[in-house]
Amino acid sequence: MATRLHDLPTPALIVDADALEHNLATMAEAKPGAANRPHVKAHKCTPLAGLQSLHGHRSFTCATPREVMGMIASSMGDDLLLANEVLDARRLMIMASLQDQAQITIAIDSDATLDAAAEAGLTRVIIDVNVGLPRCGIAPDKAGALADRARARGLTVAGVMGYEGHLMMVTDRAEKKAKVDEAVDLLLAAHADVGGEVVSSGGTGTYDLHDRVTEVQTGSYALMDTSYASLGLPFRQALHLWTTVIASTDQWAVCDGGLKSLGMDHGNPAIEGQFVWFCSDEHITFSPERDSGNAIAPVGSHVKVAPAHVDPTVAYHEYLHIVRGEEVLDTWAIDLRGW
Amino acid sequence: MATRLHDLPTPALIVDADALEHNLATMAEAKPGAANRPHVKAHKCTPLAGLQSLHGHRSFTCATPREVMGMIASSMGDDLLLANEVLDARRLMIMASLQDQAQITIAIDSDATLDAAAEAGLTRVIIDVNVGLPRCGIAPDKAGALADRARARGLTVAGVMGYEGHLMMVTDRAEKKAKVDEAVDLLLAAHADVGGEVVSSGGTGTYDLHDRVTEVQTGSYALMDTSYASLGLPFRQALHLWTTVIASTDQWAVCDGGLKSLGMDHGNPAIEGQFVWFCSDEHITFSPERDSGNAIAPVGSHVKVAPAHVDPTVAYHEYLHIVRGEEVLDTWAIDLRGW
Repeated sequence: MATRLHDLPTPALIVDADALEHNLATMAEAKPGAANRPHVKAHKCTPLAGLQSLHGHRSFTCATPREVMGMIASSMGDDLLLANEVLDARRLMIMASLQDQAQITIAIDSDATLDAAAEAGLTRVIIDVNVGLPRCGIAPDKAGALADRARARGLTVAGVMGYEGHLMMVTDRAEKKAKVDEAVDLLLAAHADVGGEVVSSGGTGTYDLHDRVTEVQTGSYALMDTSYASLGLPFRQALHLWTTVIASTDQWAVCDGGLKSLGMDHGNPAIEGQFVWFCSDEHITFSPERDSGNAIAPVGSHVKVAPAHVDPTVAYHEYLHIVRGEEVLDTWAIDLRGW
Repeated sequence: MATRLHDLPTPALIVDADALEHNLATMAEAKPGAANRPHVKAHKCTPLAGLQSLHGHRSFTCATPREVMGMIASSMGDDLLLANEVLDARRLMIMASLQDQAQITIAIDSDATLDAAAEAGLTRVIIDVNVGLPRCGIAPDKAGALADRARARGLTVAGVMGYEGHLMMVTDRAEKKAKVDEAVDLLLAAHADVGGEVVSSGGTGTYDLHDRVTEVQTGSYALMDTSYASLGLPFRQALHLWTTVIASTDQWAVCDGGLKSLGMDHGNPAIEGQFVWFCSDEHITFSPERDSGNAIAPVGSHVKVAPAHVDPTVAYHEYLHIVRGEEVLDTWAIDLRGW
C-alpha cells in the first residue's frame, strides 16, 4: 500500500489521524467507558473499533449479523449489542454458536423476533422500544409483556433500548433537549415494566443530552460528515474522499469521486471553497464558489471531498487510509461490510 | 448458496431471469453485435457480461481500471473501452501489461491524460468529446489537434466518443431526438477532424435515437431501475432488492433494505402498492398506498424493492441472485467493484 497521500490510488477514503484522535478523546471524556457503546455501523472497521476500545469503550453496538461476527473474529467481542431485529434462522444460529466467545445481546420488538432469537439458541435479548421514530421498536406499554414472555422462555432480558433518530438533526438545543426528554420518558416507562440493567439510547446528535440512560450508542462522532457538522458538535471532520482531478475546463473541473464512493441520501458532498454541481457514478463536477477568487482545480491536482453521510459512504469502500499530513500511517480494511 | 428465493439471506439483490433475457434480447435485436458496446458499470458482474456476449456483443465499455482488469481476468476482453479518464500511473501500467490479452482503448480528453496513457505504454486511445454534458470530454473544435498529438506519440486513435448524459431523462421524444441530433452533430464534427473507425455515444435512454454513430454504450437496460422505467422503454424491471419485513405496526412496516443496499441519488426506491416513508441505513419504513386497500406487510413476509438507480445499488452488493419464480437458478459474484 502507498505510504504517501499523493501516491494513493483514487478515489480513496482518508482519515485524519489527529481529528480521529480528537473525536475519540472528546467522546471518551464526555461518556467514558461503558457510558458509551460505540456503533460500528458508522465505520465498519474493526481496527477503528480497536482504537475506540483503547479509549475505554469495551462494549459495542452493531447493526447487522456480519458486524457481530466480524467483531468477534477480531476479538472485539466483550459485549456486543445487535441493535436491530433479525429473523434469519441461519445467521441467528451462527451468532448463537459464538456466544461462548462473546456476550451477544440482540434486539427484539415482537413475538416473531423473540421466537427467532430463542429458537436459534440466543440467550440474551434487549427490548427495543419505539420512542417516536417510526421504525422498529415495540410500543412502550407493551414492552413489559414482551420481556415477560422472553423470560418465560428462559432468556435473559438485559433491559431496554430506544433510538430517537428523528431528533438527531433538530438544531435548536432547548427544543432538542425537551424532545429527547420526552423520548427518554417513554423509554424509562418501558424500563420500569421490563427491568434489567441496561437503558440504551442516543446517538452522536444527542449524546450530551442524555443523563437518565446507562449508555449512549454513538457512531458518527468518530469520522463525522457534513450533515452532523451542521450541528456544531465538538467533533471534527476526520473522513474525506481523496480524489484526483481528471478533467478541467474554463468553467468547471471533474474529480474521480462519485455516486459509487459516496452515500448520497443527505445530498451532495462538499469541497472546501468549491461548489458541487452534481455527481455521476464516477465523477463530481465542481467549480469555485462564486466571488471566492478560488481557481478552477487543474488536471492532476487532488481534491478532498467531505461526505454528506458517513455510514453509507464507508459501506462502499474496502479501506480506510489513516493519514497525518502527507504521510499514510496505516491502511485499515473496512472488514464489516455486508450483512 | 440458497436455491429457493425464500431461503436467501436478506437484503439480497435478485434478478428475474426472464426479464433479464427479455432485456438482452430486445437490445440485441435493436442494436446487434458491435452496434452495442454494453457498459459493465451498470452491473459490475462478469457472468452477466458473459450473457450479453452470448447475445452477440463482444465489445464492452468500462468505467474503471478494475472493471477492465476484471473483464480480462474473465476472458471477456476481446475489445474493451475504458470510457473514462485515468491519471494513475500504476493502474495505467497494469492495463498496459494486459494489452497482449485484450484490445484496450482508453479515453483521453487532455494533454495530461494523453501523456499518462502514453507513458504507461497504452497504445490505443479514443478522443472523449464534450457534447453538452458538463463533465469530461474535450471541446469538439480541439479534438482533432489532440488526436494529432496522440498519433505523433505513436498511439493509435480509435475515433471519438461523446456521452450525452444530460439528455437521458428528457421525456418528450421529439425534443429528445432533436437534442441528441445536436449532440451527434458535435461528435461528428469532432470525428471529421479526429478520424478513426469508432464513433461511440448514447445510453439506455437514447439508444434508439442514434443512427449516425457506429455503436452505443448502454448499461441500465439489462437490469433497469425505476428512473429509467419512467421513460417507457421496452425493457422490464429485472433487478429488485429482496427484503424481509422485520417489524410491523398498525401504521407502517419496516423491511431490512436501506441506505447501504440502495443507491439513493435518484430518491427513494419503490415497493409495489406501497408508499415508502423513508430509508435508514438498514431499514425502509413503508405503508400501503392510500386507498389501495393493501394490507400492512406482516413481520416475516418478504418485500421486493425496486431501486431508483441501478448502478450505485449494485456497487453495494457482493452477489446477484438469478431467480425464476421461487427458484434461485444461480448466484453471480459482482466481481468488478472498486477502482
